[in-house]
Amino acid sequence: MKYIFSNLVGVFILDKNLNIIEKRLFKDVDEFENRKKIEKMIFEKYKDLKPLDNFDFLRIFKDKNYLKLFYERNLELTKRTLKKVTKEDTLIIQAINNIDELTKIINILVKRVREWYELYCPEISKKIANHERFINIIISKKREELLKELHQSTIGIDLNEYNLKPIMRIANEIKNLYKLKGLQQAYLKRLMENLCPNLTALVGPLVGAKLISLASSLKHLTQFPASTIQLLGAEKALFRHLHNKKKLPPKHGVIFEHPLVCKAPKQERGKRARALADKISIAVKVDYFKGKFIGDKLRKELEERFK
Amino acid sequence: MKYIFSNLVGVFILDKNLNIIEKRLFKDVDEFENRKKIEKMIFEKYKDLKPLDNFDFLRIFKDKNYLKLFYERNLELTKRTLKKVTKEDTLIIQAINNIDELTKIINILVKRVREWYELYCPEISKKIANHERFINIIISKKREELLKELHQSTIGIDLNEYNLKPIMRIANEIKNLYKLKGLQQAYLKRLMENLCPNLTALVGPLVGAKLISLASSLKHLTQFPASTIQLLGAEKALFRHLHNKKKLPPKHGVIFEHPLVCKAPKQERGKRARALADKISIAVKVDYFKGKFIGDKLRKELEERFK
Repeated sequence: MKYIFSNLVGVFILDKNLNIIEKRLFKDVDEFENRKKIEKMIFEKYKDLKPLDNFDFLRIFKDKNYLKLFYERNLELTKRTLKKVTKEDTLIIQAINNIDELTKIINILVKRVREWYELYCPEISKKIANHERFINIIISKKREELLKELHQSTIGIDLNEYNLKPIMRIANEIKNLYKLKGLQQAYLKRLMENLCPNLTALVGPLVGAKLISLASSLKHLTQFPASTIQLLGAEKALFRHLHNKKKLPPKHGVIFEHPLVCKAPKQERGKRARALADKISIAVKVDYFKGKFIGDKLRKELEERFK
Repeated sequence: MKYIFSNLVGVFILDKNLNIIEKRLFKDVDEFENRKKIEKMIFEKYKDLKPLDNFDFLRIFKDKNYLKLFYERNLELTKRTLKKVTKEDTLIIQAINNIDELTKIINILVKRVREWYELYCPEISKKIANHERFINIIISKKREELLKELHQSTIGIDLNEYNLKPIMRIANEIKNLYKLKGLQQAYLKRLMENLCPNLTALVGPLVGAKLISLASSLKHLTQFPASTIQLLGAEKALFRHLHNKKKLPPKHGVIFEHPLVCKAPKQERGKRARALADKISIAVKVDYFKGKFIGDKLRKELEERFK
């Protein structure tokens, strides 16, 4: 009776007292990964080989030479595995989180510009509710022009060029941030269309990416039941309901952002969220297993049901 | 017996039955503001004039013509007063709040870049702790160059140009934000040196501006006792102590950021914060009443005491 034991260092043949009879060391990790070929040759040479279980391995490798080699090979192998594990969904998660942060940051800065600019001319800030338009207008036009267009006078204080500059600097920065956000969204859209075309066609790149981010990967998302997908992003409300039965359970998580749900009348939303989550559950499975493109079909089915 | 009554509309002379004998209407708000001259002329004409109290005024001005004029003048006057009230400390408060926000924003984005870049090359991110240096380095050098300099290999995944771009876009935005923050700090410094040179010399523009922002104006800050100044910005800790005697009271608010306090050994800090707050209390009063420049002297006294 003889034993065979393969590891990162090489293939070892042992007798029944576990002494090494023959060894065949690997040159590098590549050879370890293609070890099947070498093992086959050895199995042909020795007919009655049995694999060795892992525990006994410790006794053999007290030899310090082997230990060092084993450590190095292990590190190399870990690096290779890590590289393979980091997939496209990791990039998607980074991108969607960054887009969320940029939205928050733009809001903080717009609030500051409005407050600061309102010392100078509250009328214009009050008149223009849309943030992006407000920023573009105060960058491109002087207060006096704007007041003329509005046929108004201002109760704001007069600020000279020097005191206006800090406000305009933030406004210009916000303009840059809007541009950056647009570019990141375009990047995310392309990633999403590559990795999960069906999910993207069904709910759009932003909601789709948020779902992946909440599930922490596309693989995990495929493993969730539709009812979990329906509530992803509403964990706080869900646990509040579970701990304290007074509050109703939430009806939707991030999929609320889908127009089919958020534009529906309030009493319809729960139903629509459930139907949408069902379709998402199908779409992600098709995406993960690289099936056909059925995203448009799924969306049309939903739209017709809730016309 | 005759009465005189001046208001925004004009000066009115009334007999004892409160009928208008003579009136002298103002042309505009300017004339109202310089009404002393006109009133003097009238006092010379009628010898036995007494001012009218406000209540009776309502009976006279039921005349709608006057009411409209009164409303318009009042609006105009309010606008003028508002313009005067908004002073330099309002700009200081905007600037320091903006600087605080920029610090927060830069932190959010640097965290994102580090996390994203660490997929690509964790070794560099781990090696360079300083945020600004890290951003500048990854903008200016490629991963391969950096790894060569560090004599290291990477466990990061390979990202092509297209997937690296979104990371670099944020890094460049952060560079802009650092620049913006520097400019806003320079602006704040100049405002502070103009409005309160003594406070600025004593604690620097940032801590000084935070104190003004917390007190909501320089005027309010002058009215606080030194003990309040010492704790400005530590309200949460203070009220926690007051409601629940188990916790010790705080020893310092934002003045903790002053090197004299934050670099002191822990048991010295309370004493130093108290002494610093005393000096701040003097400095702001001198600033508010436009006294001599004694900021350097105050700082030297403190520094010598705690050498």
